[in-house]
Amino acid sequence: MKTYYDCIPCLLRQTVEAMRMSGADEGIQEKLIRFVLRETADIDLNETPPYMAYLIHQKIREVLNDPDPYQEVKEHFNQLALDMYEDLQQRVENSADPFETAVRISIAGNIIDFGVRADIGSQEVNDTILECLHSPISFNTSIELNRSIKQADNIMFLSDNAGEIVFDRLLIEQMPREKVCYVVKGQPIINDATMKDADAAGMTGLVRVIDNGSAAPGTILKLCSPQFIEEFHKADLIIAKGQANYETLSEVKNTDTFFLLKVKCPVIARDLGCDTGAVVVKRNSSQESRSALS
Amino acid sequence: MKTYYDCIPCLLRQTVEAMRMSGADEGIQEKLIRFVLRETADIDLNETPPYMAYLIHQKIREVLNDPDPYQEVKEHFNQLALDMYEDLQQRVENSADPFETAVRISIAGNIIDFGVRADIGSQEVNDTILECLHSPISFNTSIELNRSIKQADNIMFLSDNAGEIVFDRLLIEQMPREKVCYVVKGQPIINDATMKDADAAGMTGLVRVIDNGSAAPGTILKLCSPQFIEEFHKADLIIAKGQANYETLSEVKNTDTFFLLKVKCPVIARDLGCDTGAVVVKRNSSQESRSALS
Repeated sequence: MKTYYDCIPCLLRQTVEAMRMSGADEGIQEKLIRFVLRETADIDLNETPPYMAYLIHQKIREVLNDPDPYQEVKEHFNQLALDMYEDLQQRVENSADPFETAVRISIAGNIIDFGVRADIGSQEVNDTILECLHSPISFNTSIELNRSIKQADNIMFLSDNAGEIVFDRLLIEQMPREKVCYVVKGQPIINDATMKDADAAGMTGLVRVIDNGSAAPGTILKLCSPQFIEEFHKADLIIAKGQANYETLSEVKNTDTFFLLKVKCPVIARDLGCDTGAVVVKRNSSQESRSALS
Repeated sequence: MKTYYDCIPCLLRQTVEAMRMSGADEGIQEKLIRFVLRETADIDLNETPPYMAYLIHQKIREVLNDPDPYQEVKEHFNQLALDMYEDLQQRVENSADPFETAVRISIAGNIIDFGVRADIGSQEVNDTILECLHSPISFNTSIELNRSIKQADNIMFLSDNAGEIVFDRLLIEQMPREKVCYVVKGQPIINDATMKDADAAGMTGLVRVIDNGSAAPGTILKLCSPQFIEEFHKADLIIAKGQANYETLSEVKNTDTFFLLKVKCPVIARDLGCDTGAVVVKRNSSQESRSALS
């Protein structure tokens, strides 16, 4: 997805929120915001919004001299999600359709997104789970997803955020684990999950976990490691969590990708063709046409 | 009020909304947003947010080659408010405290603010009136305001937006009209009221109306005409409507100013010390201390 004009104020808002969270002194904050404004003035609108977020947060880490300003936030949400894990696992097992319930809970976890909002609390996580369990699913392709999982030999699951990764476990547990490769970020970026979070969430004990070699939100292929790219092209099914993965992969062809996300911004809602707040399970268009033809 | 970091994404959002409303072609829109980003990178944070909005909208008008992009919006809201006028006048007359009811309705009109949001509709104007009639008033100094009006010889009423100006009439009708000077903007800026709107709203037939010689939101004294400045300093009571007048006059000393506004943004809420959404009647601090001492 290209960068829309509406993304620009939002990227600036993210910068201000990240600066505030860092507790950096006023001089540093001012330097940062002026830098981001200058960089944004020359933005290539054909790049995706996560590419711009990548540049911004690279500068934030550099100026703050802090390689991981969201470390505490990530630890907090991993723990919060782990505290909910057993109850949610029971809920999945006791539900009429455990696969779809696990899909819904995994998407609910996507509310923990500090790129979008830095004021998420535990109550909102709880409320979002309840809401996602009962909301209609936009572009509902979860039956297709379940069928594709059964048919696939190599399933790549592209994660999104820390905390959310614990909710993903419930969905991974519905899959043939030996076929799944779970992907985290190569280095810290906002509150996205890294290998450390995969360990904390118990994901590394469950399936093979690799990192994508990149410190960008979503999956910007030109920034990923050759090892990741090789695995990406080998996968016959890609499950991509969250807005940033949609933004960065929605126009990548020749993959069979299911986007699982909670829509948190009106620009992505418009691009997808659904409402803000929607719970989305959407297969990428090239595959949709392929299914329609087959 | 100085420009806070949070004002920056908001100024950018205003630019995007104004561009969209203008219907300008993509090339022009892109040129504009890049210009605004560059200008904002060098912003003097000691200037008020309306000063920055003034620079931005000056450029918007220049690039669009349109001296008044909000003309239709202003006409629409003047008419909408005029259609409600008689009913509201009845409501004021039949109320237990006509002055306070008129104050509340005048503040409700302040919701018609395209600098803050470009998606206001007639339903929201109606809802806001009902809400403002029953909300508590933050820093409620409306009794003090009523007393000051009775004691004053020269009352200056600084208007805010088109449409809203019709609601102000109800409040002006509660005052000794010969003492009131109602002030509009010198040239079009966003949907702020100009002399044309004062005519359309019937204000010019009611009291003396002057313009401030400026094309900035609020009242930025250094941009106003010498004639206005003279009148401003002669006034022994200033009634200032809306956020932009608060932002630009909150630190001006040696005036007796009552700020009447609907708080529409968290930064101003924080600066004032109230909640977003609050209905505010606040006397400027220097006068507050003066009253406390007297």
